[in-house]
Amino acid sequence: MHAAWLGDEALRAVGSRCVEVLGDAPLIQTIRAELAHAHARHGGSTEAPQLVLALGGATGPEGYLLSRADGVTRVLAETDLGLLHGFFHVVRLGEAAFDGSYGPGLHQPAHARRMLDHWDNVDRHDVMGQVERGYSGDSIFWRDGVALHSAADETRVRAYARLIAATGINAVALNNVNVRGAAARLLTDRLDEVAWLARIFRGYGIRVHLSVSFAAPTRVGGLGTSDPVDPDVAAWWAKTTADVYAAIPDFGGYVVKADSEGEPGPFGYGRSHAEGANVLAEALAPFGGVVHWRAFVYNHRQDWRDRSTDRARAAYDHFAPLDGQFRDNVILQVKYGPIDFQTREPISPVIAAMPHTRVAVELQVTQEYTGQQRHVCYLAPQWSEILSFPLTATRSVDQLATGGIVAVSNVGDDVFWTGHPLAQANLYAFGRLAWDPSADPAAILDEWAALTFPGAPPLVAQTLHAMMDDSWHTYESYTAPLGVGFMVRPHYHYGPDVDGYEYSPWGTYHFADRNGIGVDRTRATGTGYTGQYPPPWCDTYESPQTCPDELLLFFHHVPYGHLLRSGVSVIQHIYDTHFAGVERVLELQPLWERVAGLVPDDLHARVAQRLVEQLRSAIEWRDQLNTYFLRKSGIPDAHGREIYA
Amino acid sequence: MHAAWLGDEALRAVGSRCVEVLGDAPLIQTIRAELAHAHARHGGSTEAPQLVLALGGATGPEGYLLSRADGVTRVLAETDLGLLHGFFHVVRLGEAAFDGSYGPGLHQPAHARRMLDHWDNVDRHDVMGQVERGYSGDSIFWRDGVALHSAADETRVRAYARLIAATGINAVALNNVNVRGAAARLLTDRLDEVAWLARIFRGYGIRVHLSVSFAAPTRVGGLGTSDPVDPDVAAWWAKTTADVYAAIPDFGGYVVKADSEGEPGPFGYGRSHAEGANVLAEALAPFGGVVHWRAFVYNHRQDWRDRSTDRARAAYDHFAPLDGQFRDNVILQVKYGPIDFQTREPISPVIAAMPHTRVAVELQVTQEYTGQQRHVCYLAPQWSEILSFPLTATRSVDQLATGGIVAVSNVGDDVFWTGHPLAQANLYAFGRLAWDPSADPAAILDEWAALTFPGAPPLVAQTLHAMMDDSWHTYESYTAPLGVGFMVRPHYHYGPDVDGYEYSPWGTYHFADRNGIGVDRTRATGTGYTGQYPPPWCDTYESPQTCPDELLLFFHHVPYGHLLRSGVSVIQHIYDTHFAGVERVLELQPLWERVAGLVPDDLHARVAQRLVEQLRSAIEWRDQLNTYFLRKSGIPDAHGREIYA
Repeated sequence: MHAAWLGDEALRAVGSRCVEVLGDAPLIQTIRAELAHAHARHGGSTEAPQLVLALGGATGPEGYLLSRADGVTRVLAETDLGLLHGFFHVVRLGEAAFDGSYGPGLHQPAHARRMLDHWDNVDRHDVMGQVERGYSGDSIFWRDGVALHSAADETRVRAYARLIAATGINAVALNNVNVRGAAARLLTDRLDEVAWLARIFRGYGIRVHLSVSFAAPTRVGGLGTSDPVDPDVAAWWAKTTADVYAAIPDFGGYVVKADSEGEPGPFGYGRSHAEGANVLAEALAPFGGVVHWRAFVYNHRQDWRDRSTDRARAAYDHFAPLDGQFRDNVILQVKYGPIDFQTREPISPVIAAMPHTRVAVELQVTQEYTGQQRHVCYLAPQWSEILSFPLTATRSVDQLATGGIVAVSNVGDDVFWTGHPLAQANLYAFGRLAWDPSADPAAILDEWAALTFPGAPPLVAQTLHAMMDDSWHTYESYTAPLGVGFMVRPHYHYGPDVDGYEYSPWGTYHFADRNGIGVDRTRATGTGYTGQYPPPWCDTYESPQTCPDELLLFFHHVPYGHLLRSGVSVIQHIYDTHFAGVERVLELQPLWERVAGLVPDDLHARVAQRLVEQLRSAIEWRDQLNTYFLRKSGIPDAHGREIYA
Repeated sequence: MHAAWLGDEALRAVGSRCVEVLGDAPLIQTIRAELAHAHARHGGSTEAPQLVLALGGATGPEGYLLSRADGVTRVLAETDLGLLHGFFHVVRLGEAAFDGSYGPGLHQPAHARRMLDHWDNVDRHDVMGQVERGYSGDSIFWRDGVALHSAADETRVRAYARLIAATGINAVALNNVNVRGAAARLLTDRLDEVAWLARIFRGYGIRVHLSVSFAAPTRVGGLGTSDPVDPDVAAWWAKTTADVYAAIPDFGGYVVKADSEGEPGPFGYGRSHAEGANVLAEALAPFGGVVHWRAFVYNHRQDWRDRSTDRARAAYDHFAPLDGQFRDNVILQVKYGPIDFQTREPISPVIAAMPHTRVAVELQVTQEYTGQQRHVCYLAPQWSEILSFPLTATRSVDQLATGGIVAVSNVGDDVFWTGHPLAQANLYAFGRLAWDPSADPAAILDEWAALTFPGAPPLVAQTLHAMMDDSWHTYESYTAPLGVGFMVRPHYHYGPDVDGYEYSPWGTYHFADRNGIGVDRTRATGTGYTGQYPPPWCDTYESPQTCPDELLLFFHHVPYGHLLRSGVSVIQHIYDTHFAGVERVLELQPLWERVAGLVPDDLHARVAQRLVEQLRSAIEWRDQLNTYFLRKSGIPDAHGREIYA
């Protein structure tokens, strides 16, 4: 496997210096092992210690103090986990950690919970494969129903744990939220597989979580019901959970997708989602565990003819009335937007609607809707924008996310971990932003590039910035316009299919006709979805005059001639952005050629191969979208560029 | 398995009478066994013979003389196969066979080759399953790579052979034309499986054929090439074919899908399709075998932006120049239309273009594009129309089809054989029309109904006529309009998806924009496809004024306001037919309820269940099509009916 951002060279600065590590705790052993390896590689030093790591100080459960004075860099932390975070901070700094004097600075994570969710299947699913929405090979945990427990498998999982721990991640959910087949038994007679993985992740301060089926009492417990208010069901969850903790004392908790896209849930028993979540929460509470209860509940069998039902409304309508009814170890896990991880969505109003509930924001590192690791799409700018969004008058999304930050992982058994090597940057950036949402995406990219390509000439970082900094906007420009979303090939979610979801039961429509396009979600004439937002957004989004251009078609149905705030018409914007998007993609291959020989050949070749596909796909997007809208609107491109009739 | 049209009651007339069968030949034994079973069931008779079957007369290889005089019905045939056909004729007549005097009438098949092609896979295909485009359960020949050879399996194959022999079928191709995985080895080390099936079919006068891969010399022969002009390749085919005939002396021959949708073919070696077909034909010639060489060759990776390429042209462009170059035991197997078994297509011009080539017409009994055995769609009227079509000044399609009539089977291991019990009528009718293309579809339905529901009151046949006679037109009315085709969900080919193929590589486009719809295939301004037709069709189709309405959009791109020969506009025709189609489907359930208790309960229930789905699907078709075209054209329904905006 590729070393990613923790190759031997990335640890040269600490590995070539004398380091003193004081104390004795499990993660301090991890630090010592890291140092032993780095010293073996880089020679260490026999001089006086230049780096000292020690327990001490009131830094909080994961924080640390970092300082440098008198030629000695010091990390001081209240816990061994804090010390490990501090150690990786020093690694990230590289030579700069040993330069001059600074600090002391107290570093603490913005969020106590920073989690990656794997959608890995135990059995290989006929349609979804070994990893649902995975674009990086198969799972690193299971294959064809069998746990991967060889020495090589263990080495790989450890390498993964180390990589994500270095970014600040402290929790991993191991399996797909759609709990199918044998996966349901991870909770019971296959618990040893979870314990095996927990042991490895524990070595890097990461707790494991398990996705469980709400119907587990009937599916694997032998009960006649999974009704959450049934005492036998509660007893089953309590007993089962106690068994889990007996095997895994630091087990994190459960992740549940209930009443969602066919998964069972409390609605099946006429119970509320609070009742559903609480029975699991009660079972977990004695052990300090939490239940991540997903808010992704909507009618996925909608009738496209029904214009009154609005999928965007669903999570709020289901959950907002339940605020205050959840136990305090329930974390309501809310996708950042109201639909489903589109390239551009407004922020989910649920995040502001439940002040008495712990809410986690769910992002997607795996590029399901953003090019599936075949397109360059650096997502840190999107996440940064989301997390800093001032959803209420007083608080940003980041501040409202009291339950933490979660994302769907993009890792598989691909040699580069992430299929597209540059998609490693997304994995790295997610961890960094979950720890510090105020971090600058470009600075994170610098960090990642320096660690991943240590010693490379400046042209490499310059090239990566040129290719990646604006790549999310580039991807947006040649795909679905102005926030309308979807227009992807059904099921695959890759490549254009403008009407692919238009007559489907999935609730994801654009309503394009010969006159205009977009979804009227206003209170005045539409579905009323804008009313779910606090001020000023309930008003900002209500009017096409104040609604941001990039979300116009999410909130409004407008004529093709409607002038955007940018001054161009909607139809001309569609043409312009699709031509411009391809122009920008055309720049990528020559840019990447500049760094041939400056990055590893295999990595260079892999990226080069993906760029060919990205260009093909971007052209297809441009042409299908332009043709579709030219045919429908009859309005030619103002600049006379080629649109196939 | 359901007895279909040969249940015990269907043989009551012969089974209750004294029958004398003279002579001794394999198929005469088959007749005797049929009679023994019927007599055991119905008591026979000890009087003087009322039916005599005997060899004799110059009736041709499959013909027979049928007559009745002096209270004795007589069948006289030159061969035992002719006698078997005559026997089944008597069965079909039932009591009428023994009524008054008639004849003698000479009955001979219009076509020497009347074949059903199975698209059964040996291995189960990940996407296509056990039977490609099969809607009746799994294969009756193979399951998951293994031949089905139990006693029950043998009984079922024998029952199938008996059923189709009774309709006049005399050839069966056993396996999918896409020869994947283990299927390639049926020709070599799995030949015993073919021989096993051949023995069963032989008992009813049916010869078996095998679909083979053009690349068999490399795939299973161990050769370094499959180049048809390579002497080693020719020798391999000769040797392999000799081995086949050693095991199966009456083997029919090969079916080949070459250079088609990814299958290998002569183009891979820079050879023509005549060279490709002839190498197989030469191997088969010494044994009297034939090669059915499919003309379904087109570019399935077309660029939708390329308006100059026309898939409809492809077969003619590929094959017409080769006329006269094929060996005389090559049969060019041509789908009836130039695209792919659509509900409505013009006749393929290839059928008229190759006077020096034996051409077979290929139809589709399996309802791939006509409702997949979930919709009632009696196809005999379509086939009758196709076969009687006067493609040249002097000859109908039927007369041009000197190589025979072929269809893709609709049979699987479903208890009713065909999924939808009423789809049995299609299987029955195909055999009857292949024997006698002038037969009236309604009369065939009468025959089928009388045999399938013997003794049922007249209401049953009346109801079947009401439901089925016009069901092809009904299906046409609520699906793709005016011959434009496709608009089905990609890959599945079931349910509407107007733009599903519009930006695909498959060459099946409708080019709808805000002004109009259709494919310009004229010589004047389009792809020139009309020029492939002989007069008068090359001119009839060239002008929108003379082109038949039902094919207008196949040949012309016209404005939505274009007036059809019927007097209504294209857009109003779309609305009218889609509303009317659903209205007709709405009549089906009450019609079918009338015969509850008059047909077997399980059969009634199965049809009733399918009718529910047909109605749902027809409404979906209506609403998607109407909405799509209202959105695109902006023209409202003249009658103000509900179209969802």
